[in-house]
Order: sequence, then structure tokens, then C-alpha cells
Amino acid sequence: PSRLPVYATHQLGVAGAVLDESTGKVLVVQDRNRDCSFHLGDTAVREVFEETGIKSEFKSILSVRQQHEHPGAFGKSDMYIICRLEPSSFDISFCQQECLRCEWMALDEVARTKQATPITSNVAKLLLYGYREGFDKIDITMREFPAVYPGLFYKLYHRELPESYRNIT
Amino acid sequence: PSRLPVYATHQLGVAGAVLDESTGKVLVVQDRNRDCSFHLGDTAVREVFEETGIKSEFKSILSVRQQHEHPGAFGKSDMYIICRLEPSSFDISFCQQECLRCEWMALDEVARTKQATPITSNVAKLLLYGYREGFDKIDITMREFPAVYPGLFYKLYHRELPESYRNIT
Repeated sequence: PSRLPVYATHQLGVAGAVLDESTGKVLVVQDRNRDCSFHLGDTAVREVFEETGIKSEFKSILSVRQQHEHPGAFGKSDMYIICRLEPSSFDISFCQQECLRCEWMALDEVARTKQATPITSNVAKLLLYGYREGFDKIDITMREFPAVYPGLFYKLYHRELPESYRNIT
Repeated sequence: PSRLPVYATHQLGVAGAVLDESTGKVLVVQDRNRDCSFHLGDTAVREVFEETGIKSEFKSILSVRQQHEHPGAFGKSDMYIICRLEPSSFDISFCQQECLRCEWMALDEVARTKQATPITSNVAKLLLYGYREGFDKIDITMREFPAVYPGLFYKLYHRELPESYRNIT
């Protein structure tokens, strides 16, 4: 079948924003090594568990972060997908080799704090907006499609597509 | 500074949707090897050029594609970021080792055709919506932040955040 050109890079990342809806608290980690701002791993859910001991479930894609070295740069190792995760366990048991601190913090506190990085602060504001007014306001819309191989599925996340365009024939 | 937990995988991909606004045509590629549905490469722009000879410029992130093998799966090599690219050259000179066919096709034709994969068809519908009603309807909103290292910048793509949340203190 015809398709748009598709390419793979191999240094993109996944980040997990774990929000406890029952308390409005979000899981915040402070790295031991500030220069190393992320850890290699298969999945956001698995890595959150390995690093913090918190079990969580993938809910949606919230954001894509792109590091921007010079105008038009779009190179390797410079993109993250930031996911919204829902915790199913709450007792932190964090990896002290990797983290200095790991704690549940009130979401509005993280959104307001000057110490947070701009990215963390902005994702916290996004989560606060969704927490107060509905996650449909912040989640990127998802549609599911069957893949070429039987039993496989694709999820496609994008802005809402009006009915008239979805059903175009 | 405090931050949300961040992790990197290394098998995510980037796809380029190249739309010629002056004609409403989109660049469509048919692979020689259907099983190999993508090519390794640094950037969507560079790979589009190498494979098709078309020069283009990155405009925005349109969509994230996630392959979904079983419920809750969120593993390696299963995500693509689909970018909107604007062409600055139009003469195709495609790589015959990789492609069977490469051509400019009318966007509404791609959106309607039964031969396109569901992903291509859906991205074409999204592009058609943006082409007719404004790309602000389909682009994922972008904000730019200074990075920890001087001179570096981050771009963060996400749903629109209301002023009241953006300026929360």
C-alpha cells in the first residue's frame, strides 16, 4: 500500500509523568547526576517501577520534547515522548545510585515552584489543568487501527479530527 | 532541579509528511520491501532528501504512532513521531533500491484511497483538514524553553495550555 515516507532514528526517549488522582500528587525525582538527565530503558512504566518502586499504568501521550541545538536542527537523541501514567502502588523505594530524592509532591506546588526545570514546570501545569478540568483537555487524542500483521494494532495520537474528515470517502 | 522521571528508549522513529501547499499534493512512497517499513536515519528531513531527492523544512509535529502488540505493551521500536514537512524543491529523484514508486499525489485522493494504509490515510485526512482550515487546527502547540546549557533550547509540543495555567505562580 502507498504510504508517507517513514524513517526511524534510534535515540528518542520516553518520559513518565505519574499523577496520583486521589491526592493530586505527582511523582518527582531528583537525579544524583544532574548531567545525565535520563536513563535508558524499554518503557516508561517499567523504568518508573525500577527506579522508584511505583507501579503504574500508561494512560496517554501528553507531550513531545525536542532539544533544539541550532535552528532547524532535528537530530538524534533529542526527542522525548512524555506520557501520563496512573499509579497503582504508592510506596516509594527508589534507586539511591541514580536518585538523590524521590517523593510525591502536590501538583500545584510543582507547577508553582521556581526550582523545577521549565519542562517539569510546564508538564506539571498541563497535568494540573487536566486534573482540574478533565484529562480530555490535555491528552492527545488516540485512534486505533489494525496493522498489516493479523492481531497487531497501531495507536495513532494526534489533534482531534472532525467527523466530516474522519469519514471522508 | 526537581523533575518528573524521564527515560530514554532507543528505537523510536520519525516520519515525514511532505505537503506542497501550492498544489495540495503530498509526497507518497511505495517501498520495494514491504516488510521493511522504515529506514534508519538521523532526521526526517535528511532521510526524505536522501530517499526522494526532495528538500524540505520541518514545520511541526502532527502525530505519534504507537505499535500495540498486546494490551499495555509499551516497548522498544514501536513508536514514531510523524512530522509535517514543507518542501522547497519538487523534482523527485528517488532511490530505486528502496522504493518501487515515489510521486506527488493529490492530498484528497490519498485521504480517500482504499489502497493507503490506515495510518497514511489518517495522516492524509489530518493534513487535508489543516490544509483547508489552517495548520493551527492540526499542529501540536509548541513552546520553547532555554536549556540548562547556555545557548541550547528545548521545544515542548503539547495541547494548548490556557493563559491562567501558563502564568500560575
